[in-house]
Amino acid sequence: MTVEEARALFPVLERLAYLNAGSVGPLALPVVEAMRAAEELCLLEGRGSMSTFERTLEERGRTRAAVAAFVGVEPELVSLTASTTDGCNIVLAGLDLGPEDEVVTTDSEHFGLLGPLHASGARVVVAAPDAEAILAAVTPRTRLIAVSHVLWTTGALLPIAELRSRSGVPVLVDGAQSVGAVSASVRGVEFYTVSAQKWLCGPDGTGALVVADPERLRVARPSYLAQASYEPDGSFVPRPGAARFDPNWLALPLLAGLLEALELRPEWAYQRAAELSALFRERLAPLVEVLPGDGTLVAFRPRDGEDAGAVVRRLAEEGVIIRELPGRNLLRASVGWWTNEDDLERLVAALERR
Amino acid sequence: MTVEEARALFPVLERLAYLNAGSVGPLALPVVEAMRAAEELCLLEGRGSMSTFERTLEERGRTRAAVAAFVGVEPELVSLTASTTDGCNIVLAGLDLGPEDEVVTTDSEHFGLLGPLHASGARVVVAAPDAEAILAAVTPRTRLIAVSHVLWTTGALLPIAELRSRSGVPVLVDGAQSVGAVSASVRGVEFYTVSAQKWLCGPDGTGALVVADPERLRVARPSYLAQASYEPDGSFVPRPGAARFDPNWLALPLLAGLLEALELRPEWAYQRAAELSALFRERLAPLVEVLPGDGTLVAFRPRDGEDAGAVVRRLAEEGVIIRELPGRNLLRASVGWWTNEDDLERLVAALERR
Repeated sequence: MTVEEARALFPVLERLAYLNAGSVGPLALPVVEAMRAAEELCLLEGRGSMSTFERTLEERGRTRAAVAAFVGVEPELVSLTASTTDGCNIVLAGLDLGPEDEVVTTDSEHFGLLGPLHASGARVVVAAPDAEAILAAVTPRTRLIAVSHVLWTTGALLPIAELRSRSGVPVLVDGAQSVGAVSASVRGVEFYTVSAQKWLCGPDGTGALVVADPERLRVARPSYLAQASYEPDGSFVPRPGAARFDPNWLALPLLAGLLEALELRPEWAYQRAAELSALFRERLAPLVEVLPGDGTLVAFRPRDGEDAGAVVRRLAEEGVIIRELPGRNLLRASVGWWTNEDDLERLVAALERR
Repeated sequence: MTVEEARALFPVLERLAYLNAGSVGPLALPVVEAMRAAEELCLLEGRGSMSTFERTLEERGRTRAAVAAFVGVEPELVSLTASTTDGCNIVLAGLDLGPEDEVVTTDSEHFGLLGPLHASGARVVVAAPDAEAILAAVTPRTRLIAVSHVLWTTGALLPIAELRSRSGVPVLVDGAQSVGAVSASVRGVEFYTVSAQKWLCGPDGTGALVVADPERLRVARPSYLAQASYEPDGSFVPRPGAARFDPNWLALPLLAGLLEALELRPEWAYQRAAELSALFRERLAPLVEVLPGDGTLVAFRPRDGEDAGAVVRRLAEEGVIIRELPGRNLLRASVGWWTNEDDLERLVAALERR
């Protein structure tokens, strides 16, 4: 697949310089077609027919295996969730932390991680987003280090396996801006979340949680899918592996769409996204203040004191889709394997037009 | 809308006697069309564009209001979830129960309620599914009564408001088999779950939780949608009302589909479903042992010692879709406002054919 063939998969790219996969990725037509074919089956065969049910279970297994293969772990370590938020809540609820416990995070995390950390009841210790500061914040009371692999603000990459090995403390990684964006391993940590609707271009409401040792995390928010068998009082034998953490049923169209999204992804995706991201940083640097970063998120300040929200709206009118980082007066462009130099030039021209 | 017009909305009814809304409801073509129109917008405008984002938020507000109006409460008391399981987990996590606490439930609950009850850490006391037995199980340690409004096994209706007023104990109601199925109020209890993909014929992955006093339940599994503002350590000011409990973003197609499903529902839905359910019970009684019940679920034993799972498969081959109640060797037919006498006769004929 050439870059041009790849771009042709995404109708949104025909008209817009769509640079916001960090919020939600572009949708490919084959993904929507796979979803529609599955919807058609549900419409005609019945969503609650045995045949649909069995096919959905099979597709669920295939999806789990495909996500696992993509991130390079065994399917037994993958739970299928709706979001990174789901993953964080599953882990924090299962760890049973209390006010005597500490968790270490950074000052650049998304609320999808911060909210569950706070709700856990543990004391949340906030460090600067670099390895030394994070490690310096670890005390004998630290039960968890919980950080992003790639910061949603600047695209900076944190050395998660190093944090784990040097601290000796379990690590939960918010992988929302890393999986599918940068070639970086999910291994070497206890818990790793996946947002499939962003850089994997999967359907909304799809994601995953990788759990290195499923037996050691309590199933704190069970769904019907959690149990192999259960007693009248709700006590249950968990299903083998991380499937026990699956929080909800996923309908056939979601599974079919995610499978298709993983399948159509070109082999050169990571390399191209990295090259384009570097090109974006280089090209934007003379024009705006670009924040240091190494992922596929390029953060920069608005020019001449313009308000970030106003810039987002102005650019949208010109067909350039970026986002604002609220409370920081920063702008963020997301660069994917589907992005090209034209998108970059449209962004530059729109920023200069002011 | 006549019954024939109503039936024509559902393609699955053209070929099948689809009698399994208790698992998942039939999908109406206008619902799928509404979802497809929304998908088209996401495909062309970009899922992460400001315009799509703002439209999704508006549709989210409309959906919350529509669900609230349907169950007869204020929108401020409604959280939009993916399932009844979500609702049960949100409530149980937020109540912060421990081993000193007791919760009372019945021996006829779904794991979607039982699992969260067990995971709460409280002692789960199991009573027979009738009001006197449930009330007799209440002790000074009882912190919650958690029961279905309509039992998923037999369709029997429990007097939830009476359980609340006579016990003085907070009540969580599993509304999976009641909302949209029978005309019964969600009022008079603290927590009430809604499964929108069953009797409301909404998209998969839609549901709600009604919380009578949102301020009094802790937000134990926050999503980004939970907060009006937050601090670097994740502490946050919750959004007003039950919206603080919303566990996940719902994409535009899901919201559009649910709105359409609520809109196309005829006024005579409850009355017709009740009449047809009574007719099913009456017509089946000479043929099979029908369990007592008053909802739209009709449970009965297989004939002549036949295995329930085998009956489900045999009937599916004849185009009659019912389900088995695992571990009980029971069969269950779900009767909706879209069901007709032909469906009943097909079921009877298929049962007799053996």
